[in-house]
Amino acid sequence: MDRPTLYIANKNYSSWSFRPWMALTGAGVDFEEVLIPFDYPGGNPDIKAISPTGRVPLLQHGALKIWESLAIIEYVAELYPDAGLLPRDRAERALARSVSMEMLSSFRALRSACPMNIRRPKGRIALSDGVDADINRIETIWRDLLQQSGGPFLFGAFSGVDAMFAPVVNRFDIYDLVSQNDTLAYMETMKAHPAWRKWEEAARAEPWIVPEDEV
Amino acid sequence: MDRPTLYIANKNYSSWSFRPWMALTGAGVDFEEVLIPFDYPGGNPDIKAISPTGRVPLLQHGALKIWESLAIIEYVAELYPDAGLLPRDRAERALARSVSMEMLSSFRALRSACPMNIRRPKGRIALSDGVDADINRIETIWRDLLQQSGGPFLFGAFSGVDAMFAPVVNRFDIYDLVSQNDTLAYMETMKAHPAWRKWEEAARAEPWIVPEDEV
Repeated sequence: MDRPTLYIANKNYSSWSFRPWMALTGAGVDFEEVLIPFDYPGGNPDIKAISPTGRVPLLQHGALKIWESLAIIEYVAELYPDAGLLPRDRAERALARSVSMEMLSSFRALRSACPMNIRRPKGRIALSDGVDADINRIETIWRDLLQQSGGPFLFGAFSGVDAMFAPVVNRFDIYDLVSQNDTLAYMETMKAHPAWRKWEEAARAEPWIVPEDEV
Repeated sequence: MDRPTLYIANKNYSSWSFRPWMALTGAGVDFEEVLIPFDYPGGNPDIKAISPTGRVPLLQHGALKIWESLAIIEYVAELYPDAGLLPRDRAERALARSVSMEMLSSFRALRSACPMNIRRPKGRIALSDGVDADINRIETIWRDLLQQSGGPFLFGAFSGVDAMFAPVVNRFDIYDLVSQNDTLAYMETMKAHPAWRKWEEAARAEPWIVPEDEV
């Protein structure tokens, strides 16, 4: 079957898009990329014509459409079992899914107060207690995984779990949210990854400004 | 290894607990159940001692702890590949994960306005537009899957995807949110499942009242 097509939105802002793009690019998967910018109130009609949810990311492979960042990563991990997107050990894989799904379902305070914004200069903003609790929990997840695996990525080598947390790495960085050495070292590892750099370069070159995400 | 232990909270209210309990029970998996009621502001200390997130559900299997309802279902599906928790076909499995993860990450308006409450008598409440949009999207998901599979469950036979939507079946039912025949027929199928009836009977027998979930 043809290579899959990943539909994404603005690289500067679309945290949901960044996750599967980073996973697929970091794992060396060959895919086509289609970017549909956020530029209509109520959603871009081009996205609504393609995606059952009216949102991106969406992976199309033949007639099959897959949405939700982690469902896309799971599908590609099944297609390419040697790409390293999920740990090979069953217990580690269960842990990988627990933390990836915690990322998918949680941390609303952080995600709402601190939008991903690749080109934003570093600088603090006022935060609620809920955001602090989210930051602490994510730092605990990272620290536990890095200690277990020995790093430099959460499960040793780069995996889909790192991709699930990539937007948080940007948030921690640009809003200057963390100061612990192990957290900062992990963030530097992520930001030095070739897939990160490629996404960042494209984000910086985008013309679009989304005012509500400029915090 | 010993059979796994599933930690859950109040059966009447804990939508997150209902999902893996319904999946494991519906699939005939042998597991031990430990119920830790919600009864402390800020969270029950018994849960905090057991769960890395301070929340349930949590599945413990030997030394391994797995959290997030869908991560638990994925783990048990790997342990018992014949239990039917995930579709066998890769494309169907990708679709199962897309809709399960959409449930995990979305529908905040519905979930916040309409708490799961097994023993609540049926009766309407005032709803926001956001809740209506959530209801419409979930009905579309169900209708598409039931048409594709032929029913009576979302992927034909009972699976983990039905379990992921079980709390929504209760919400649609008790707040009288839907009127389409195919949606109502699916809800009756779910409510007649032996696992549902067993959970419902235990929920009705619980002594605990959580005022903020009585809407």
